Amino acid sequence: MPSSITPILKDELDIVIPTIRNLDFLEQWRPFFQQYHLIIVQDGDPSKVIKVPEGFNYELYNRNDINRILGPKASCISFKDSACRCFGFAVSKKKYIFTIDDDCFVAKDPSGKEIDALQQHIKNLLTPSTPFFFNTLYDPYREGADFVRGYPFSLREGVPTAVSHGLWLNIPDYDAPTQLVKPLERNNRYVDAVLTIPKGTLFPMCGMNLAFNRELIGPALYFGLMGDGQPIGRYDDMWAGWCMKVISDHLGLGVKTGLPYIWHSKASNPFVNLKKEYKGIYWQEELIPFFQSVSLSKESTTVQKCYIELSKKVKAKLGLVDDYFNKLADAMVTWIEVWDELNPSEEKSVTLPNGLAK
Amino acid sequence: MPSSITPILKDELDIVIPTIRNLDFLEQWRPFFQQYHLIIVQDGDPSKVIKVPEGFNYELYNRNDINRILGPKASCISFKDSACRCFGFAVSKKKYIFTIDDDCFVAKDPSGKEIDALQQHIKNLLTPSTPFFFNTLYDPYREGADFVRGYPFSLREGVPTAVSHGLWLNIPDYDAPTQLVKPLERNNRYVDAVLTIPKGTLFPMCGMNLAFNRELIGPALYFGLMGDGQPIGRYDDMWAGWCMKVISDHLGLGVKTGLPYIWHSKASNPFVNLKKEYKGIYWQEELIPFFQSVSLSKESTTVQKCYIELSKKVKAKLGLVDDYFNKLADAMVTWIEVWDELNPSEEKSVTLPNGLAK
Repeated sequence: MPSSITPILKDELDIVIPTIRNLDFLEQWRPFFQQYHLIIVQDGDPSKVIKVPEGFNYELYNRNDINRILGPKASCISFKDSACRCFGFAVSKKKYIFTIDDDCFVAKDPSGKEIDALQQHIKNLLTPSTPFFFNTLYDPYREGADFVRGYPFSLREGVPTAVSHGLWLNIPDYDAPTQLVKPLERNNRYVDAVLTIPKGTLFPMCGMNLAFNRELIGPALYFGLMGDGQPIGRYDDMWAGWCMKVISDHLGLGVKTGLPYIWHSKASNPFVNLKKEYKGIYWQEELIPFFQSVSLSKESTTVQKCYIELSKKVKAKLGLVDDYFNKLADAMVTWIEVWDELNPSEEKSVTLPNGLAK
Repeated sequence: MPSSITPILKDELDIVIPTIRNLDFLEQWRPFFQQYHLIIVQDGDPSKVIKVPEGFNYELYNRNDINRILGPKASCISFKDSACRCFGFAVSKKKYIFTIDDDCFVAKDPSGKEIDALQQHIKNLLTPSTPFFFNTLYDPYREGADFVRGYPFSLREGVPTAVSHGLWLNIPDYDAPTQLVKPLERNNRYVDAVLTIPKGTLFPMCGMNLAFNRELIGPALYFGLMGDGQPIGRYDDMWAGWCMKVISDHLGLGVKTGLPYIWHSKASNPFVNLKKEYKGIYWQEELIPFFQSVSLSKESTTVQKCYIELSKKVKAKLGLVDDYFNKLADAMVTWIEVWDELNPSEEKSVTLPNGLAK
């Protein structure tokens, strides 16, 4: 497929960062981020002051701001956890969001060139996805690639891309048990590919290096209840990813993974992680079959409607696993109320796909 | 996942080649192929003599041999088309098959090292597949990789790998319309990845560079009726791939794609290809929904039973598209008879998967 895109989207994209503990972070990204607007959502103690270097255009929200803006509905936004980043998704007014953690730095490609992660995400989002049939040469819309022999012509138009999931060189995104077992493992493999995750297939979405089309899928990117006062952590992005994928599949939207890489500098403490994760590790065994089998009704033609329907099914099915999921289901509804208050008259109906594929 | 495999499998693998028009082919592969047994299935005029260089251990079948061995059942083996290669799959007595076309040469990896394609296929086949959930760092069983955070632990054992689908540098495997539109496009992108094609997802399987576990999936790898006297060509491998994927999904087997690359030296003539393909290009629009929605019964617990059940569904559903599919459905049955005659008492029942996933 020919590709003559020159992505910039300076005025159409916000970068959302859940706290900044490290001044180097923005200094290193300066050449790539400075032209964009930043939304910083401070994940911890609001009395601490986050320093943002000169020259960046940003807004910063701490817990006091979130409480003030949302009132009692602030309960749906996690505290002392990077899950709070989704508040930034809701207050943004832009079409696209790129979210990145502050321990993620600029990676280099095999030729030694610094990778402009944001521009690769934008390329991914501006080209269609192909969820109904797998293309063996990966993203057919990249320069030098196309659909291979045997790819049905009726499916070559693809579908709009909702999410671009980027990867990590150096420290891989492992769970605590794997971190404990393989403390020295580093990801050195640069895989030069972008691919669509097929319809009906779930994946573990990591929030470290993630971009999405807010207009298409924004309300599905809720990062749940984690951190202070909650029984689990480190499942915020996973939860968002499972909900998002089920809704994207239902609405005929695409999800890509692969490039771009960032350099993940630091492994978090595996003992702390284990404490946060252990309930998630066994709950997950019930969550995955739930998300693999859940189906949404024909009446759910907007992301919001899908999300509300999903929250009811979460309550009905996962509420039996643990009472936490009843609370989470309620928070999902509150989140949609928050989204709609902050984004009035934005809800967009789509015609559900009915063509080929499951 | 740790990987301490030293694959060789000298006595457990046959290399099946549909004709050899070029002595260079075997000379170039000599360091990699010479220790293996070759099965050459001559695709054209049996009076022509195929020259095999000194030092190779091989058996060669031409059309007269196939007719003599199979009698009237030889009708299911294509003539004057590389689809005849599946005869080699049936006469082999080995556990694994690697099949390659004679215009495929040794490729180099980005460091300039020659790629031992066969050894990579064996690695792919000897490690499990993960069809129920997508791993964002690709094959978790490769050195330096693992399952990422959020991957359910109950699914990390994986399933046996039935098929390893390799790719091509230089000339990509495009259909005739794409060849005509992009005559100069070359595949220069070395993607250092192997991945499992998720359950429920179809892909275009190319027969140029393909390996499989004959004991697990052999009878599903029938390359159909192509070439002399048939209305289409260049859909032999596609047909085999769709049937194989549906049956692998049903039986809980895995299919991998990605590495290894071979160097595909020569584009076939796009005008000739168009003539062979044009019926396939529109039939395919009916075939894909058929294969996406077909389901096999619980009674089909062997590859042979699955294949016979599939042949009945082909006749019932695709027979309406064109009478060719009635002939093909009959040939599918004949093929299984051929397989069972050549491989007596080999049929293996499996316990169908019932765990997670669709």
